[in-house]
Amino acid sequence: MHTPSDRSLTSQKSDEKTVPHPLDGIFSPKSVAVVGVTNTPGTVPYDIFYNILSAGYQGTVFPVAPGKRSIAAVKAFRYVVDIPDDVDLAVIVFPADVVDRALEQCGQKGIKSVVVISAGFREVGVEGRKREQRLKSICGDYGISLVGPNCLGVINTDRKVHLNASFARKMPIAGRIAFLSQSGALCTAVLDYAREKQIGFSKFVSFGNKAGVTEIELIEYLHQDPKTDAVLLYLEEIREGRKLIEMARRVTHGDGAKPILAIKSGRTTQGADAAASHTGSLAGEDAVCDEIFREAGILRVNSIEELFNAAILYAYQPMSAGDRLAIVTNAGGPGVMATDAAVRGGISVPELGATTRTKLKAVLPAAANTKNPVDVIGDARADRYVAALEAVLDDPGIDQALVILTPQSMTDIEAIARGVVQTTQSATKPIACSFMGATDVVPGIHLLQSANIPHYILPEWACTAMAAVGRIRRWREEPLDQPEPLSVDQAAARAVIDAAGPGYLSEDQALVVLAAYGLPVPKHLLASTADEAAAFAGEIGYPVVLRVISPSIVHKSEWKALALDLTDDGAVRRAYDGMLSRVAAAAPDAAIRGVLVRRMIPAGHEVILGAKRDPAFGPVLMFGLGGLFVELFEDVTFGLAPISPASAARMIGQVKAGRLLRGLRGGEPADVTGVEQCLRRVGQLVGDFERIAELDINPLITGPARIGNTVADARIRLGG
Amino acid sequence: MHTPSDRSLTSQKSDEKTVPHPLDGIFSPKSVAVVGVTNTPGTVPYDIFYNILSAGYQGTVFPVAPGKRSIAAVKAFRYVVDIPDDVDLAVIVFPADVVDRALEQCGQKGIKSVVVISAGFREVGVEGRKREQRLKSICGDYGISLVGPNCLGVINTDRKVHLNASFARKMPIAGRIAFLSQSGALCTAVLDYAREKQIGFSKFVSFGNKAGVTEIELIEYLHQDPKTDAVLLYLEEIREGRKLIEMARRVTHGDGAKPILAIKSGRTTQGADAAASHTGSLAGEDAVCDEIFREAGILRVNSIEELFNAAILYAYQPMSAGDRLAIVTNAGGPGVMATDAAVRGGISVPELGATTRTKLKAVLPAAANTKNPVDVIGDARADRYVAALEAVLDDPGIDQALVILTPQSMTDIEAIARGVVQTTQSATKPIACSFMGATDVVPGIHLLQSANIPHYILPEWACTAMAAVGRIRRWREEPLDQPEPLSVDQAAARAVIDAAGPGYLSEDQALVVLAAYGLPVPKHLLASTADEAAAFAGEIGYPVVLRVISPSIVHKSEWKALALDLTDDGAVRRAYDGMLSRVAAAAPDAAIRGVLVRRMIPAGHEVILGAKRDPAFGPVLMFGLGGLFVELFEDVTFGLAPISPASAARMIGQVKAGRLLRGLRGGEPADVTGVEQCLRRVGQLVGDFERIAELDINPLITGPARIGNTVADARIRLGG
Repeated sequence: MHTPSDRSLTSQKSDEKTVPHPLDGIFSPKSVAVVGVTNTPGTVPYDIFYNILSAGYQGTVFPVAPGKRSIAAVKAFRYVVDIPDDVDLAVIVFPADVVDRALEQCGQKGIKSVVVISAGFREVGVEGRKREQRLKSICGDYGISLVGPNCLGVINTDRKVHLNASFARKMPIAGRIAFLSQSGALCTAVLDYAREKQIGFSKFVSFGNKAGVTEIELIEYLHQDPKTDAVLLYLEEIREGRKLIEMARRVTHGDGAKPILAIKSGRTTQGADAAASHTGSLAGEDAVCDEIFREAGILRVNSIEELFNAAILYAYQPMSAGDRLAIVTNAGGPGVMATDAAVRGGISVPELGATTRTKLKAVLPAAANTKNPVDVIGDARADRYVAALEAVLDDPGIDQALVILTPQSMTDIEAIARGVVQTTQSATKPIACSFMGATDVVPGIHLLQSANIPHYILPEWACTAMAAVGRIRRWREEPLDQPEPLSVDQAAARAVIDAAGPGYLSEDQALVVLAAYGLPVPKHLLASTADEAAAFAGEIGYPVVLRVISPSIVHKSEWKALALDLTDDGAVRRAYDGMLSRVAAAAPDAAIRGVLVRRMIPAGHEVILGAKRDPAFGPVLMFGLGGLFVELFEDVTFGLAPISPASAARMIGQVKAGRLLRGLRGGEPADVTGVEQCLRRVGQLVGDFERIAELDINPLITGPARIGNTVADARIRLGG
Repeated sequence: MHTPSDRSLTSQKSDEKTVPHPLDGIFSPKSVAVVGVTNTPGTVPYDIFYNILSAGYQGTVFPVAPGKRSIAAVKAFRYVVDIPDDVDLAVIVFPADVVDRALEQCGQKGIKSVVVISAGFREVGVEGRKREQRLKSICGDYGISLVGPNCLGVINTDRKVHLNASFARKMPIAGRIAFLSQSGALCTAVLDYAREKQIGFSKFVSFGNKAGVTEIELIEYLHQDPKTDAVLLYLEEIREGRKLIEMARRVTHGDGAKPILAIKSGRTTQGADAAASHTGSLAGEDAVCDEIFREAGILRVNSIEELFNAAILYAYQPMSAGDRLAIVTNAGGPGVMATDAAVRGGISVPELGATTRTKLKAVLPAAANTKNPVDVIGDARADRYVAALEAVLDDPGIDQALVILTPQSMTDIEAIARGVVQTTQSATKPIACSFMGATDVVPGIHLLQSANIPHYILPEWACTAMAAVGRIRRWREEPLDQPEPLSVDQAAARAVIDAAGPGYLSEDQALVVLAAYGLPVPKHLLASTADEAAAFAGEIGYPVVLRVISPSIVHKSEWKALALDLTDDGAVRRAYDGMLSRVAAAAPDAAIRGVLVRRMIPAGHEVILGAKRDPAFGPVLMFGLGGLFVELFEDVTFGLAPISPASAARMIGQVKAGRLLRGLRGGEPADVTGVEQCLRRVGQLVGDFERIAELDINPLITGPARIGNTVADARIRLGG
């Protein structure tokens, strides 16, 4: 396979090489050592070595196999340090308990890139965690970039490299899509699936336990990789959510933007403790992840099918300029079903222009339907398909086309496929096809796939893919701004927070903190006597609300410790005395801080503003419809705190509460700008104070602009 | 192919034959005439004849081909009347314009079953409609059951018949699923698709324009067909919705129940006129269809994939006793993804019992996961899969199992498939498989499919199929009762309705009609003077509400023609004068019927009760959350009127408004029984009076049982 002169050539090249990216050694090594190879075909250690050897790798590969003279006729070395040449990448396949020693030797040899295939680390419990920790520390000592452990390996289809450093059975074909997976087993299924659909990859990485290189660094590498147009990610566990999001926003937006399509699996059961506040109970990890991904331009999908359906359309067709779809079909039924699916996904199937319809009438038989979907009728042959497809693509009111074919007796399947391929060559709008069925249509499908025309067994899938690409496009069109700090009195908030222990602030304390951050807290006073309450009520004006403030009272409706709509001095005094005696009777030991007196808030819409600290993403904001309806409809959305003005507006815009605030059925619009400000202020607050574990403003009463917003009830929980 | 003696035998048999079902002639004819055959292979007329001839038909086939001596070496006849033998079924393939004459001759010949393949009828406009009408009238004259026109034909795989009277390229394999389609083109795609997945059919019918035999009669036939376990339906247009529903309730429930799985395509744009009432605007045909199908036990799905995924699980595995799923997998990732999909669909993936976990620990390696999903680990071979599968199937807390396989290097795919097949033979719980990938796993998949074990490319699809079968099971467990008429004063309602012209009843009239049907209408009076209003207010007690009643005022908030919460005589007089002068100023020509005075209704939840007449289904009821939220959340459901007690309860139970009424977060439960009664009374009302085109009670104010329900606002629109 290689000779001494070969090796020295490699070595020379290796000396000259400049490394513009730390992961180049993983993806484009000039030489690879496979460490721990055995001589038994069908085992992982042998297969990996043999895959590199046989898949056309353009560099040099060295087997490291203690006690073996050669592997597959290639001279073997006892240790990696024994290799006389420079080595860019080491792939370690030793059993888990000796991987650390092999890694140490890689460090000594000066190898900066390592893939650890071996399992038996973090995923197998305490002992494994220790082993993995040891690998991390060795990587730190030697500055090694490590992929794995517990992974399938790495593939680069670039013909200048052509490296299959994995135990995948076959090398995938080259293409414009990169696939990253936390699950190695899924990789084997995906490779098999993709081969059958002729889907090609640029890079294919199983990153396993991500002890060293994470999905974040991999995506950053792929962002600058000229061979990759789209990044597909299968993720089971988010460890550095905040960093992931910041990276994704850079990658998916602006110049050189590439879409990230992700499956994030693993719904978690909510701990009972989370139910203490609304924000806590609603901000389940999965729901938060959905929204946070959206806000970072990561397109989250539910299955492998959806992932590739969208990716092939994005990678192999021009980006559509809009969401208007024309359908050309030889069968009415599937055309209608496709229309249904398109509309469900937000893709419109509009009327065609008059010119287009005239053109269609000229080329189609009288019985054909020249509306959209265009029905070229069951006996249509290639000429009719091509003429119809060209006509709809020429329509300025159409952004993309879907060709549906059912195999009827007159259908010249391959000729139609060739016609579509030819039309695509001059087209500037994306085209997808669905040749329905499974066996008769196969030759046609292969023609389409070879020409990079996305093909879908079901027309509905094409429509779902178009909807997904539409989301990518709209995301790019949206502004991406930064949080803009507002003027706040941080010191006042700090005084309260620093003085308090873990747990809930009392309501009066919470109001002080919120007021310090400019949230619209109503005038209030903590009264200790009925006289004080009545005097303050007279000062701020009637009607007023009274509430007993006590750490023992969590839900305000308990023990009737709340009195609303008090309209005069007498009512205030009666309420004051009444509620205190009720509380005394129900909970004689309750510590009472006082009775909060504030003005009755004018009617308005009730919304909820919340924040909590997510284990992966850090401080997260929540917004939605408040009051009883927050539980009933869970009409809430999430965003990362602190939040930019555009993101705050987007949060409000994407829930139904936003529609309500903008004014429903002729109702007066509420102060949406004020709500945006509130969101930004809460975001700034939880961003500034790490001790705030949870915050609930429920409800914020939102009136028209002339009245504005008022915090009607608020709770803040501090961590330790 | 056949000899004179053959024919006479057939003819004799035909004489003896008793016809227990009118459609037996379509599906199990002893003899078939193909009318209009040509001698050109590759054309529909020839292909149909040749398909019957070559697919192993067990009866006798006669070509009718004027001017031809024989077709494919079979003696041809000039006209159908020239055939000396009895003919059970005629398949007409003549061009549209002569089909009527051929049909007439079939009648003369005494043929009672006819399939018209030819297109060119209802679907091509006015001329075609006339032609189709003519066919209908001939069928009426001769008592002919007609399938089509404009269809692909009929297939019966029963080996005693084995009839492919269609122009489908190949005969499907025999199976327990019947497929009915309004789209002929879809049939060709479905046949191709099913063949690749080894899905078999009992009957396969393309019913086209349904000029004679409709989907309703076909499903009734399949209900009593011992070869069919499940009915799959592709429907584009519902003509006799009410009849369809009544039939479906019989077929899908009780003894010999068979599920109906349906795709109903074709969302319709809502006419602007429908937006006049809430019920109108919300009860779009598609939303109504969703709910009405559910109420009839028809499982509506969105795609061909979903249709077959659910059907094969139902038809080829025992019905699960519950929704608890165990997953056995050799890869963590796909297991997690399957769990996600299961939970999304309402299928639980519970903890396994202690005994099961002990069993699993005994047979699996230490690193395996004995929780659910059970991870048998990447190097698992057949023995480990079988042991794990048997253990989870033995668990009394598990109702069904899913086996997931990813093709890893040690995976003995075929051995595992054989192991699963063997386990299934003694299992009483349903099992599904997902061997992921596309090429390596194919031999294993074929083994599973041959043993009727449902296989899904993606584990998520298996879970969606299980969710669908779960819905079928739960539907069967629900009671199916009949509407029970309540005591009402029909005459009083009739007096108002008969006296009124088309359009909206005035509110006072609407209240009379509703009160006559026992709906909780508050005490009210139509006052003509301020004195009268004040006197009545004193009589019924304060606070009261006043409203100007005028046909010119449609929305009550217009022109402030409404005054709430009037607490004394003076307030009533001021309000009366004020609102009349406002209306006079804004609309001097408005005809005023008077001012409605009624008591202010105590606070409660606002729900909407509506009814409208659907073109296909007749009178349809709507229920949901009222007030502003009806538009915001469209949390509404539909049911057929009149409605049974159980269905009324189901309607309330399946929307979020129902959860609100039952008492949210410790709130007092509302009078749900009263709301059920209201639904039944509205159902009875619109059932009794065909002239009621639309009815809206919005809101019905629903309080706790001691307060009950009150109609706060109501509108009734009459048709011509």
